[in-house]
Amino acid sequence: MINITILGSTGSIGCNTLEIVEKYSHKFRVVGLAAGRNLKLFLKQVKKFRPKIVSLDRSQEAEELRQKCKDMDIHVAFGQEGAEEVARFEKNDIVVSAITGIKGLRPTLAAVKSGKKVALANKESMVVAGPLIQKEICKSGAQIIPVDSEHSGVFQCLAKEEEENVKKVILTASGGPFFRTSLQEMKNKTVEEALNHPRWKMGKKVTIDSATLMNKGLEMIEARWLFNLVPQQIGILIHPQSIVHSLVELRDGSVLAQLSPTDMKIAIQYALTYPQREDSILPPLDLSQIQALEFYNVDDKKFPLIKLAYEVLEEGESFSVALNAANEAVVGAFLNGKIKFCDISVLVRKAVENHQKRKVESLKDIFKIDRETREQTLNLMKQRF
Amino acid sequence: MINITILGSTGSIGCNTLEIVEKYSHKFRVVGLAAGRNLKLFLKQVKKFRPKIVSLDRSQEAEELRQKCKDMDIHVAFGQEGAEEVARFEKNDIVVSAITGIKGLRPTLAAVKSGKKVALANKESMVVAGPLIQKEICKSGAQIIPVDSEHSGVFQCLAKEEEENVKKVILTASGGPFFRTSLQEMKNKTVEEALNHPRWKMGKKVTIDSATLMNKGLEMIEARWLFNLVPQQIGILIHPQSIVHSLVELRDGSVLAQLSPTDMKIAIQYALTYPQREDSILPPLDLSQIQALEFYNVDDKKFPLIKLAYEVLEEGESFSVALNAANEAVVGAFLNGKIKFCDISVLVRKAVENHQKRKVESLKDIFKIDRETREQTLNLMKQRF
Repeated sequence: MINITILGSTGSIGCNTLEIVEKYSHKFRVVGLAAGRNLKLFLKQVKKFRPKIVSLDRSQEAEELRQKCKDMDIHVAFGQEGAEEVARFEKNDIVVSAITGIKGLRPTLAAVKSGKKVALANKESMVVAGPLIQKEICKSGAQIIPVDSEHSGVFQCLAKEEEENVKKVILTASGGPFFRTSLQEMKNKTVEEALNHPRWKMGKKVTIDSATLMNKGLEMIEARWLFNLVPQQIGILIHPQSIVHSLVELRDGSVLAQLSPTDMKIAIQYALTYPQREDSILPPLDLSQIQALEFYNVDDKKFPLIKLAYEVLEEGESFSVALNAANEAVVGAFLNGKIKFCDISVLVRKAVENHQKRKVESLKDIFKIDRETREQTLNLMKQRF
Repeated sequence: MINITILGSTGSIGCNTLEIVEKYSHKFRVVGLAAGRNLKLFLKQVKKFRPKIVSLDRSQEAEELRQKCKDMDIHVAFGQEGAEEVARFEKNDIVVSAITGIKGLRPTLAAVKSGKKVALANKESMVVAGPLIQKEICKSGAQIIPVDSEHSGVFQCLAKEEEENVKKVILTASGGPFFRTSLQEMKNKTVEEALNHPRWKMGKKVTIDSATLMNKGLEMIEARWLFNLVPQQIGILIHPQSIVHSLVELRDGSVLAQLSPTDMKIAIQYALTYPQREDSILPPLDLSQIQALEFYNVDDKKFPLIKLAYEVLEEGESFSVALNAANEAVVGAFLNGKIKFCDISVLVRKAVENHQKRKVESLKDIFKIDRETREQTLNLMKQRF
C-alpha cells in the first residue's frame, strides 16, 4: 500500500487525484488531506477516504470538522502550520502538492524537507523558490515528480536521456480561449469568457493564466528549476489541440514528445505510480480521430507575458518572485471585476519593471518580496483606476 | 576510434553513412565496405575511406578493384562469402547492414553471429529470419540498433520502458506518392510516378514498397521481432508529413513519440553513436514551420498489402518469407515494366495465399521457401500476362 497525502484536496487536481486513488484502492490509501475553506466537499472526502491527519485554512472550519468527525481516529489541524503538519506526516509516502499560488510553498517545502516523494502540481513553489527547493532536495533526498501535464511529459521524455544531450525543452500551450481572437477583440473580454477554456478544466486562477499565457510563462520558470535548464533551452509552441504536452529536442536532431488525451488524470496517475505505470482509466488516444496537430509560434503582441517571463528568467530569482506576486494580485483583481482583460499584462509588466533585483536566500526573503510586490501592484492599480 | 563496416556502401543508406563518418572522422573509421556492382562509386569510396577489407558481388569487378588498389593494404573478396567475410571482420565495432532484400540476410547473420553491434537497415533479415536472428543474438551477445527511422524512433521511445508497460507501437507511413490519388487513378500509375516519393529519397525497391505501403507491412513484421511484440500491439498510421516516425502507447495512456526532420542521416547517426548522441549535421526541426501534423487510418481498399501483412504476422514465420519473396519478385517485374501498379498487390496476395505453411528452422529452409515462392510468383505472372 502506498500512502498518499493531498494538499489542496478540494481543488481540481485534488479531486482528480482522489478519483485515481479510488480506482486503485488496492494500491493507494489516503493518509492526509489539506484544503482551504470548502468544508462541505472536504467533509465528504474525509468521511469517504478516512485520512489520519487533515487541515483546513481557518480554525472555525477545522473546529466544525472536528465536531462532525468525533467518532473518527483523526487529527484535525488548521492554517499554514496545519498544512505543513499534514505535509510532514510521518506515514506519507507521496505528497500531492496541489494548493494554488504561493500559499502552496511552505507545505511543499515541508514535504521536501522531510524527504518525501512529492507529486508537484503547485507550480508557484518552483517559480519563486526553485533554488531553495533544489537545495533542500539535495539534503533530504526528496524526489519531485511533476504533475503539470507539460512537465510530466518532459520528465517522461528526459527519463531516457543524458543531460548533455538535451538541446531544448519545448512546452506546448493550448493558446487558451483567445488564441483565435484578434488583439482588438481581446481587450474587453469578460471574466466568463476568459474562464471558458477550450481544452482544460482547471481552477479559476490557472484558467485566467492560460488565457494570458502567463501560465506558460510560469511553467517555463518551473521547467528551468525542475530540469536544470538555462533560459535559451526553454521554448514554447502554441498547440491548440493540447495532445502533445511537451517536446525534448536532443543534440542529434531527434525530438522526443509526450502525447496523451487532454485529461489531468494521466499525469497525476503517472506521478503516483512512478517509476511504474498502471492501466489508464481513460480511452486511449486515437490520432486518426484528431487528424491534425497544429503548432504555432507565440504572438508576442497578443500574449506579451511570455516575453516578460523570458526576461524574468534571464534576470533571475527575485524577479520570478515579483512576477508571480504581481500576476496573482492582478489576476485576483480581474476575477473580482476590477480591471479589464487587457490590463492584466500591462500591470504585470509595470510591476515587474518596478522591481529592484535582490538576493533570495530564505523563505523570509521570498515572502517579503512577495508581500511588497503585491502592495506595489495594488497601488499601481489604484493609481490607474 | 570506432571501427565501422558498411554492407551496401553504394546504396542510399551506405552513402549517407559515409557522409556521417566523414563529418565525424575523429570518432569513426571505415574498416570494411561491401557493395554490389557499382564499381565506379565503390572505387571512389575505397580510395577515400581506405578500408582494410572490401567485397563486391562478382569476381570480375573484384579483380578490377584489386588491380586499381594495388598500392593499398586491402583485402578484396567477392560474392556472398565475400560480404560475409567483411561482416565478420575482426576489427569491426559496428556493422551497418544496408544491402537491400534477402541478399542482406547472410551477411547480417554473419555479423550477428560474431557478436557485433549491428546497425540494421536491411529489414528483410528480420522479416524472413527474425526468430533465427534473435536466437543468434542470445548466443553471441550481438546488439541490433535499428536504422529505419520508424524503428529507430520506437527504439528511442522504448529505451527505458518496461516491456509490460508497452500497449502498442505505432509506425507511421508517409502514404507514399499515391496517398491522395483515387483508387481508379492509381491503377495505371507508371514506374516513374511510383518512384517519385514525396518525402524520402531512397532506393528503387523500397520506394515502390512505399507506394504500395508494403514497406510498412514489412516494417510491422520487423518490429514484431525487433521489439518482441504480438501482432495486436503493432499499428500503422498514415502521416503525410513524415515528421513523427513512430509512437509508443503505454498502458497508462501516455504516448511517447519520436520526431525529426525527414532525413535518414538522423537515424543512421543515432545507430552509430548509440548509446551516446552527437550534434546533428542538419538544421533542427521547427514545428511552427510545418504547422500541421496529420494522421489517418490506412485505406485498405487502396493499400491492401497492409491487411495482408497483418494476416502474415498472425500466420507466422514461413508466411513472412513467402510474403517477402513474392513482393521482391513482383516489384522487380513492375520496375521492369512487365506489370501494372495495381497488379502488385493482387499478385503478392495470390502468391501468399498459395503458400503452404511450414517450419522454418534454418537458413536453408528460408532460402528454399524464398526460391520456391519466387518461382511460383513468376509462374503466376506468366499465367496472367
